Amino acid sequence: MIIVMQTKAPDAQIEAVIHRIEDLGLKAHVSRGEFKTVIGAIGDETLLRPEFFAALTGVESVMPIMKPYKLASRDFHAEDTVIPIGRYEAGGRTLAVIAGPCSIESEKQFRDTALAVRQAGAVMLRGGAFKPRTSPYSFQGLGEEGLKILQAVGGEVGLPTVTEIVDVRDLDLVVRYADVLQVGARNMQNFRLLTEIGHFDKPVLLKRNPAATIEELLMSAEYILSEGNHQVVLCERGVRGFDKATRYLLDLSAVPVIQGVSHLPIIVDPSHATGQRDLVAPMALAAIAAGAHGIMVEVHPHPDKAMSDGPQQLTPEAFKVMMQGLRPIAEAVGRCLQGAKATT
Amino acid sequence: MIIVMQTKAPDAQIEAVIHRIEDLGLKAHVSRGEFKTVIGAIGDETLLRPEFFAALTGVESVMPIMKPYKLASRDFHAEDTVIPIGRYEAGGRTLAVIAGPCSIESEKQFRDTALAVRQAGAVMLRGGAFKPRTSPYSFQGLGEEGLKILQAVGGEVGLPTVTEIVDVRDLDLVVRYADVLQVGARNMQNFRLLTEIGHFDKPVLLKRNPAATIEELLMSAEYILSEGNHQVVLCERGVRGFDKATRYLLDLSAVPVIQGVSHLPIIVDPSHATGQRDLVAPMALAAIAAGAHGIMVEVHPHPDKAMSDGPQQLTPEAFKVMMQGLRPIAEAVGRCLQGAKATT
Amino acid sequence: MIIVMQTKAPDAQIEAVIHRIEDLGLKAHVSRGEFKTVIGAIGDETLLRPEFFAALTGVESVMPIMKPYKLASRDFHAEDTVIPIGRYEAGGRTLAVIAGPCSIESEKQFRDTALAVRQAGAVMLRGGAFKPRTSPYSFQGLGEEGLKILQAVGGEVGLPTVTEIVDVRDLDLVVRYADVLQVGARNMQNFRLLTEIGHFDKPVLLKRNPAATIEELLMSAEYILSEGNHQVVLCERGVRGFDKATRYLLDLSAVPVIQGVSHLPIIVDPSHATGQRDLVAPMALAAIAAGAHGIMVEVHPHPDKAMSDGPQQLTPEAFKVMMQGLRPIAEAVGRCLQGAKATT
Amino acid sequence: MIIVMQTKAPDAQIEAVIHRIEDLGLKAHVSRGEFKTVIGAIGDETLLRPEFFAALTGVESVMPIMKPYKLASRDFHAEDTVIPIGRYEAGGRTLAVIAGPCSIESEKQFRDTALAVRQAGAVMLRGGAFKPRTSPYSFQGLGEEGLKILQAVGGEVGLPTVTEIVDVRDLDLVVRYADVLQVGARNMQNFRLLTEIGHFDKPVLLKRNPAATIEELLMSAEYILSEGNHQVVLCERGVRGFDKATRYLLDLSAVPVIQGVSHLPIIVDPSHATGQRDLVAPMALAAIAAGAHGIMVEVHPHPDKAMSDGPQQLTPEAFKVMMQGLRPIAEAVGRCLQGAKATT
Repeated sequence: MIIVMQTKAPDAQIEAVIHRIEDLGLKAHVSRGEFKTVIGAIGDETLLRPEFFAALTGVESVMPIMKPYKLASRDFHAEDTVIPIGRYEAGGRTLAVIAGPCSIESEKQFRDTALAVRQAGAVMLRGGAFKPRTSPYSFQGLGEEGLKILQAVGGEVGLPTVTEIVDVRDLDLVVRYADVLQVGARNMQNFRLLTEIGHFDKPVLLKRNPAATIEELLMSAEYILSEGNHQVVLCERGVRGFDKATRYLLDLSAVPVIQGVSHLPIIVDPSHATGQRDLVAPMALAAIAAGAHGIMVEVHPHPDKAMSDGPQQLTPEAFKVMMQGLRPIAEAVGRCLQGAKATT
Repeated sequence: MIIVMQTKAPDAQIEAVIHRIEDLGLKAHVSRGEFKTVIGAIGDETLLRPEFFAALTGVESVMPIMKPYKLASRDFHAEDTVIPIGRYEAGGRTLAVIAGPCSIESEKQFRDTALAVRQAGAVMLRGGAFKPRTSPYSFQGLGEEGLKILQAVGGEVGLPTVTEIVDVRDLDLVVRYADVLQVGARNMQNFRLLTEIGHFDKPVLLKRNPAATIEELLMSAEYILSEGNHQVVLCERGVRGFDKATRYLLDLSAVPVIQGVSHLPIIVDPSHATGQRDLVAPMALAAIAAGAHGIMVEVHPHPDKAMSDGPQQLTPEAFKVMMQGLRPIAEAVGRCLQGAKATT
Repeated sequence: MIIVMQTKAPDAQIEAVIHRIEDLGLKAHVSRGEFKTVIGAIGDETLLRPEFFAALTGVESVMPIMKPYKLASRDFHAEDTVIPIGRYEAGGRTLAVIAGPCSIESEKQFRDTALAVRQAGAVMLRGGAFKPRTSPYSFQGLGEEGLKILQAVGGEVGLPTVTEIVDVRDLDLVVRYADVLQVGARNMQNFRLLTEIGHFDKPVLLKRNPAATIEELLMSAEYILSEGNHQVVLCERGVRGFDKATRYLLDLSAVPVIQGVSHLPIIVDPSHATGQRDLVAPMALAAIAAGAHGIMVEVHPHPDKAMSDGPQQLTPEAFKVMMQGLRPIAEAVGRCLQGAKATT
Repeated sequence: MIIVMQTKAPDAQIEAVIHRIEDLGLKAHVSRGEFKTVIGAIGDETLLRPEFFAALTGVESVMPIMKPYKLASRDFHAEDTVIPIGRYEAGGRTLAVIAGPCSIESEKQFRDTALAVRQAGAVMLRGGAFKPRTSPYSFQGLGEEGLKILQAVGGEVGLPTVTEIVDVRDLDLVVRYADVLQVGARNMQNFRLLTEIGHFDKPVLLKRNPAATIEELLMSAEYILSEGNHQVVLCERGVRGFDKATRYLLDLSAVPVIQGVSHLPIIVDPSHATGQRDLVAPMALAAIAAGAHGIMVEVHPHPDKAMSDGPQQLTPEAFKVMMQGLRPIAEAVGRCLQGAKATT
């Protein structure tokens, strides 16, 4: 950690920084320049927090040398992590397409969607049973009834299932019914939920909060990893932007950035990011071209009658067209869609 | 609700919108312009969601006429809401200053802070027992031990207490010990937590998430209000900005904006917003000048030794100076600090 | 245009809106709901500005029905515009790759780069002679000397050239030497410059300002188009984001959004957006997958010795690898790179 | 400057950084940690740019120690700069209120406004003659005709005048008529314009671009200062935010941040920031409470008939009420309004 003192900081302030470093068991290296004194803390930086120094009088800025996350870091684990999910996987060279409706509304609606998306090449099923809705007056999901449909239909069509967990008290319930636990964007920093999920042996899909930096997303992954659950798949789904032309602003550069610093798989959700049906396919293709390990797309047999997020859900036909566009892109970047053979 | 059709949308698409409006029990009013057809839905707009129409083919945009929140709206409740909190209050013409350390670290630390801030004019005590920390390796708070200190010291010094709830399972516990439940910025859209809090007869301090619009903040308040708990105090604490000169970007214009559309009290937290001690007092003064109903400020007897957020915590001396600066500002805007007499 | 009045706006305020509409030569259509009165202005909306009504007392909000731009709109010109640039073009089904150094530093540096990028498949040459630099102490470009190099080398290698214009007084000069005038992000709303450029018969590359909405970008294009110059190519180069992991935040969804509302070609600059060499290729591929009409990429023979923007410039080798990756992506989306034959 | 190498960067890469530092005439200090090697460049950091090192292979990050601006820095000039403007001033302990219409529309409109705002306590007059408008179809200002009115009325009422310069070619003209040159937000990085303005002996009001960091604003000031014109007044007028409840997001924390690092005066424009009449007064008061050296406010005799920005312009009556609210706030922070005596 590098501590830069304010111009003309008196010796007593410099000494205070040195003592703080030494108290924490590290060595201080002092470099007095013409204007500024710079102090390096030599040793195990994981014992330090920038705020330990920023709070001291006379300190101008504090610069960490190491990343604040460890288990999520590529420094810790150099190879790409590949997470088995049923007979499919997330991470590595093959691509996972997850599809399904925003909300599970009925057994028929979910089965129709599941059959259609499997037919078109999806290898995992998504469907919300507990829905985090901005308005208390909006449809909140079918609850356990929805989970039962998820599990039943997932079994029928032979695809692993993904569903969101919105309440730490539902954890045992959701774990029982679903194959992958989704932590939604709004719960990315619900640290208690992350900690509890860390105790399960279950893949997790962790979505980035619209106000979260990539580093904060990785710190949230670290909460899960540090409790022992190493099956974390990250998901970019758009950050808050100033242009209302799209619902959120999809940050595709997060894909190569994350792949540079972390070994965890990263997929992209173009449906929530754009909020508009017409933009889903172009952004799905772009995500794969940027190197994502997969995509998660919302599909509904009748988007115009959907109980939530209708405008962004694809019809089964549009999903099929998108999948046809996706295959050559995957090949162009030296990847292939999982389950590709089954669907031709 | 106004639905604008795409240029040259065919009649069938226009008809589909009209049918949807009528199915929902409203009347459609169609206005065919030279380029665009515009359809108004006449009747109870609370039965509609924009997405019901945005999902239909040929619809270019959907514009609600009514706000999506009701109970939080000034249309519903024209007068300012004033919420009694112990022998003090939030809202109305008098100002509440809430102060205390980021985290409760020990009984001595909390009592020292409490005595100092009461002496300087604070009328409520804050102190974190459960801390939501970005890093799993950071101090997470003393838990119930901290709540006990909060309650004991609050009773000793005669000030109501505020503490954050981070887990819906801790609700009974926190309700037992604290006078005001704080919902932190990261839980602003933890809707289950909001719903449960709505069942209690307890004041709530609801902080704005850094990525939340003002409308979304009010929708989160609506979750609590609609369950029957009408004691919601809003808190602006900075949104995500692009300039790293401050931790977050304090949105003081949110104060008059909220006061225009809602009857709920709105206070400001300059400590978390700026993340820097030197900026707290100017922003506290500005908040009161902008019309806020109060402020919440972090104070620590030894910020340089704080276990969390040291850089933004004021010393008791700095807090006292800030309070001295605050009184004339309050008077200048025709307000007065609560408890002002007790502290002169 | 739809004008929504505040709840319980008195009749006199409603009348004032009606008069304003009629004064402007349109008809007013009034719809009185239970809570709100909504007034539609029927007629030629181009005669109106939202501010004409938002300034009136009692008006809550104003919603335009038409886009504020005309000539840039697909409503005005349904077919994609294709702009010839030398023997290449921008827009349509073929893709243009523009490459070259950030700054022209010497004839040798520019020729070396030009030969390398032509060899790898670029069809236009970029190179800065006038550089807008954040710091007055940074290299500001070679000026006319640079323009001469640009023209000479462009002629030698047979590729059209693109260079930035930063001062309206340089317009005649730059027009003389370059084939395409680039308006940089910082000048996107230098309306005088746009107006003057509108008088020339010369292709323009108009870059999006980091704080500009897509609508504002199209309004800036409208400045040029409305003066008679219809050869405008748009360029997305990243908006301001909160995450410092990348220099700017590349908004690839702008590509399909723009293609939905405008007929103008839209290309992507992944170099300035990311600011990091390693992210350029993934984002270039993603841009083409998203449907962009081309990309503009910075290439330097020795990026580590570049006088500006070294960290984001590709070596000729890296550029060649990127181009090899680009071809199958182009094919996958049914496009092909211009000049493809020449380079195989 | 501190250069952090990537984990396990080989010696050759470390050597390359050392050579680069030595080539530039500085000394390298190498610190090899367990994971990372950190290299400090000891000497005159103004000879370096971060990009000189960031472009080198194996470099993970580069951290400057010194600010990139010099003349604008408080390190260079410790005392607050006070800039005389006619018989008033900007900076120091007294406050300047600048008021007037968005655009000068006629001599009568400008004179009526000038008399009213002088009466209410304004000490400088603003009025636009050249208007930068998002739309080419909007009113663009009266041009030289407007400048003449500005000068004539300014002389009549005895107040110095401020007007925007939008084209470097108009500089001689505007300098002739106006007392203060305003550089608008959209031209904050029009570096040629800044450089030319630097050659004049004329006060400058430099507005922050909505996408600019505080550091970038100070770098733009540096352009003017470094050419010899030291009379730069900074102006915060809102940054781009994600919440459409206000036009821009007023960053009042910029006021104390700038005062910490720079000696230049900083004023606030609440009119453009909020875009709404009702928010102007609360934000003006907050600006003064935060320590601003003044405010600039738009006033129009008939805002509902204004040719630009009607919704944000105050009536003379509303301006008078705001001024009455401002005086006690100024006193509360130990300041006083300039010209206060003249207006009581």
